[in-house]
Amino acid sequence: MTRPGGRSARVRDAVHEAVVELLAAGEIDAAIPKIAERAGVNPTSVYRRWGSRDNLLLDAAVTRLRSTSPIPDTGSLRGDLLGWAEGVERAMRDPRGQILLRALVATLRPEEKPVEYLRARGDDLQATLDKAAERGEPVPSVDEVLDYVLAPLYLRVLFRRPVEPGTGARLVERLLTAL
Amino acid sequence: MTRPGGRSARVRDAVHEAVVELLAAGEIDAAIPKIAERAGVNPTSVYRRWGSRDNLLLDAAVTRLRSTSPIPDTGSLRGDLLGWAEGVERAMRDPRGQILLRALVATLRPEEKPVEYLRARGDDLQATLDKAAERGEPVPSVDEVLDYVLAPLYLRVLFRRPVEPGTGARLVERLLTAL
Repeated sequence: MTRPGGRSARVRDAVHEAVVELLAAGEIDAAIPKIAERAGVNPTSVYRRWGSRDNLLLDAAVTRLRSTSPIPDTGSLRGDLLGWAEGVERAMRDPRGQILLRALVATLRPEEKPVEYLRARGDDLQATLDKAAERGEPVPSVDEVLDYVLAPLYLRVLFRRPVEPGTGARLVERLLTAL
Repeated sequence: MTRPGGRSARVRDAVHEAVVELLAAGEIDAAIPKIAERAGVNPTSVYRRWGSRDNLLLDAAVTRLRSTSPIPDTGSLRGDLLGWAEGVERAMRDPRGQILLRALVATLRPEEKPVEYLRARGDDLQATLDKAAERGEPVPSVDEVLDYVLAPLYLRVLFRRPVEPGTGARLVERLLTAL
């Protein structure tokens, strides 16, 4: 698997993949040596790069969840949000996406104030909303998008309620209608 | 502390309280013997009543979270939902309520399909919505109440975003306006 970014990016991918596989196998407490072994990487370099198992878990969950639902640039806010919400919905219907969300929530410590994952997601959304506002479209706030689209999808997974197909699109349409 | 229900209810309260205190003290992995000791109860009766630590944790979290946000009967849907959402918001601003929500989410197993807590909460809400519909008020579905009021409040806590005062009321007003 060759991809841009070279060896460092490949190691990161391999380690993230090992985390996902171990979580999927129910090994939610797998420690760094086990993760490194599965990834075919030296444990020392995992410790050096991530410092702790929790940091690694957060990085893996955030990276994977963001990459499964990029925000497209379709020329309309409706198209952008629909494309994004469909990606979130797909991730939340996928057992691996569900596992990553649960791992993310379980790993966040109360003392970690600004949550990197939601902040990164918020920055992505803000850029999309800014572009729509420049085009003269009415736009919600980032908080409204998180409250009315992301929260319902995530809570379904966390409370083991089914995520019906079309949920993401319905939530986006409803948000835009309310504007 | 004497209350209706007699000895059995007192034991349940004491054990729930011990769970909350241990969670609040960071002892999230406390096992039944430790919980029983703190509650001043025989471990055998805890095993007999709850079977496992996870069952006990779920029961404690569900019972406490429901009791902190009962749905009042004010004669209008708006009043009922505002009263309820203020209780949810209060619980989500309280460190003990936050701890219980996190424990609840962490304890739910993927194989546990119908989530008792959300189902019980859903039944409470359905009864309130039915009464409003009988009075001729326009009513949302239970899913809409969960999506647009409960999910945003809960997700803020799970992702460590602040729950600003008035959030619950704002979410309820917005839901009712959209009807």
